Amino acid sequence: MKRLSPDINRLMDRLNHLAKIGTVGTKGVSRLALSDEDKLARDLLKSWMKDLKLDFHIDPVGNMIWIKKGSIDCPPVFIGSHLDTVGSGGRYDGSLGVLAGLEIIQTFVENNLHHEKPLGLINFTNEEGVRFTPDMMGSYFLSGGSNVPEIHSTNSIDGKVNLRDELKRIGYLGDYDISKFEAGAYLELHIEQGPVLELENTNIGAVRMVQGISWLEFIIHGEANHAGTTPMKLRKDASYVAASIIQKARLLTHEFEGQVANAGLIEAEPNLINVVTNRVRFTVDLRNPDNVTLREVEDTLKEYAFDVSKMEETSLEINQLVRLDPVAFDEDIVDSVVNVCLHFDLSVKEMPSGAGHDAQMMADVCPTAMIFIPSKNGISHSPEEFSSKKDIENGLNVLFEVTQTLLA
Amino acid sequence: MKRLSPDINRLMDRLNHLAKIGTVGTKGVSRLALSDEDKLARDLLKSWMKDLKLDFHIDPVGNMIWIKKGSIDCPPVFIGSHLDTVGSGGRYDGSLGVLAGLEIIQTFVENNLHHEKPLGLINFTNEEGVRFTPDMMGSYFLSGGSNVPEIHSTNSIDGKVNLRDELKRIGYLGDYDISKFEAGAYLELHIEQGPVLELENTNIGAVRMVQGISWLEFIIHGEANHAGTTPMKLRKDASYVAASIIQKARLLTHEFEGQVANAGLIEAEPNLINVVTNRVRFTVDLRNPDNVTLREVEDTLKEYAFDVSKMEETSLEINQLVRLDPVAFDEDIVDSVVNVCLHFDLSVKEMPSGAGHDAQMMADVCPTAMIFIPSKNGISHSPEEFSSKKDIENGLNVLFEVTQTLLA
Repeated sequence: MKRLSPDINRLMDRLNHLAKIGTVGTKGVSRLALSDEDKLARDLLKSWMKDLKLDFHIDPVGNMIWIKKGSIDCPPVFIGSHLDTVGSGGRYDGSLGVLAGLEIIQTFVENNLHHEKPLGLINFTNEEGVRFTPDMMGSYFLSGGSNVPEIHSTNSIDGKVNLRDELKRIGYLGDYDISKFEAGAYLELHIEQGPVLELENTNIGAVRMVQGISWLEFIIHGEANHAGTTPMKLRKDASYVAASIIQKARLLTHEFEGQVANAGLIEAEPNLINVVTNRVRFTVDLRNPDNVTLREVEDTLKEYAFDVSKMEETSLEINQLVRLDPVAFDEDIVDSVVNVCLHFDLSVKEMPSGAGHDAQMMADVCPTAMIFIPSKNGISHSPEEFSSKKDIENGLNVLFEVTQTLLA
Repeated sequence: MKRLSPDINRLMDRLNHLAKIGTVGTKGVSRLALSDEDKLARDLLKSWMKDLKLDFHIDPVGNMIWIKKGSIDCPPVFIGSHLDTVGSGGRYDGSLGVLAGLEIIQTFVENNLHHEKPLGLINFTNEEGVRFTPDMMGSYFLSGGSNVPEIHSTNSIDGKVNLRDELKRIGYLGDYDISKFEAGAYLELHIEQGPVLELENTNIGAVRMVQGISWLEFIIHGEANHAGTTPMKLRKDASYVAASIIQKARLLTHEFEGQVANAGLIEAEPNLINVVTNRVRFTVDLRNPDNVTLREVEDTLKEYAFDVSKMEETSLEINQLVRLDPVAFDEDIVDSVVNVCLHFDLSVKEMPSGAGHDAQMMADVCPTAMIFIPSKNGISHSPEEFSSKKDIENGLNVLFEVTQTLLA
């Protein structure tokens, strides 16, 4: 087998080219799922892939699937990620994984490299979940988690458009029968989106698993009252109850290993200086690699919340917006990532993924793993998102080696 | 001296009549300062007062001042309050004090009652401070706290109109020279706007003083980061810092006597579930009858805020939006209110006012006091605001008696 490498310069050129679709400012990208920008990005990817003359499918939710036949007939090894971004995102999150897959397949094609198993590429629809919920929509669908009518009936968060209408409008409403879909393995190269690799001066993250995620919505109903004339003991202050729960969530991160917590969304009503808050809606994003611990943290926080709400005589509603169990990746593939790094003299850290990825859905379908490269200052979902050419090259080379191992 | 009483039915009729200007729903009133509705309310008051043939003045900020001469020439005893309301307010706050004053003066006129000192009525401009800031604008001006150019250059909070233009537009830009203004005493009948009198089944509140008020604005700058991938020890979480400070404010109400605290306004950015909060702006409304205690609470809260902000490595800005020292009312007049109640067999409670009132500005000008009547469920600044006819009658009678004492 020849050992010709993928072309880092071509990959960087394509990342730059793609970043011109939906540009925000000088560095950022806004390419919401199924928007005009998403259509242009898909069209560009399709034009690049066209030269490789592969089988191409679009499924009913817009997932784009290419397959290059191997010497034997078996489920393909897929590389994939997504082209959609958040509203004010960067040029690496998602795009890197898709374009690295393209580069690797092109390397196989151009060098006429032999491979036994088929090799494929997937661009998943709506990983970010910003315009339509839920996130990881395409991979969840492909893993059998949802069905066509359910997804087609989804409306955008602003209520203005229907998902099926948008798929049709941009020309990506396909009819590929996913009951025929099979995968032998799935690989995803991604930026870390956290600061750990950079801080530890490490080249590659070998992702062992994805943390469990619990998104809880708390709605507290208190009573609007005059902030000067109402005795404290008569107040039903939704702001105070919310503040107590947010504080408690932070405390739990000290008490439970591996726990993180974030109160990102907070809305108060009537939101006036001198009126006791009548209603607060806020969210807590809880994550832990260990599902038992995560469950314990959820239960402890909920119990605390009901206690403090009861003491203040407010009423409390807790809604589970998202609940994803931790997902373990394939041990053999992760070991292979580690070994390839050692072979290349790259430093490698076995780590969990803090963020959700299409790979965690694919882990239900086939042996799966992810490869992380450092994110500058840990920043993602921002125009400031950045990974160096050298780090991208390391990731591309590791992905190429692991892919070859899986294809053999 | 004859002892003919003011007419409770005429007062109730006028309250109902006035509530038809700016009606919201079936019970509420929206009559923002210097709006079309405020003009109509002022015109109506003027038409009622016209029959009494008193000296009438409008000052440069639109305060309406009537004076009925007495048998001796000296500074008048004034009764007053305001006709403006909050955006969705009730029919009693302010209006009761003005119309009770009208009723009492009319009683003097119609019955040809003798009084030595002059008797006057004031309708103050913009007590609520909802359309133009600051609140208590007219009384602050009359007490010498601000000047004409300063007030005339004020623009509405929405930036759309200028205050002087609005005064002119509605016909209440006067030229009364307030350097000639003198007051021998000031009385204001008002709803409590709190639940205390009703809960304690008490007829009348003899208001000894107005609490000191401190409005603090906290702006915390953190760092937006991924809520899954950023290790807790690296987060600069503005939401957590805000929650800690709000919690501390509540704790201080337990530690310091007479202290109340309210975090009414909370705004988070970017306000997304899975992003660490970059910026929170929130307010704390602190009140205490004792200025030394209030100062200590402010200092303790600020110190705590800077400590917790430093630990989280966020940056913190604290702005003083409002700071009013406690205001003591005239001991003799308050004693007189208490004695009149005892004479009438009405239960009376000596209490501080939790809310701000024009009376606290007038206390700088002359001996001043306030009379409170119960508010149903303590509600005000709401269409639900309600005080019973019986409670209003009690208040009117006490006001009449105390006025007569002061006029003698």
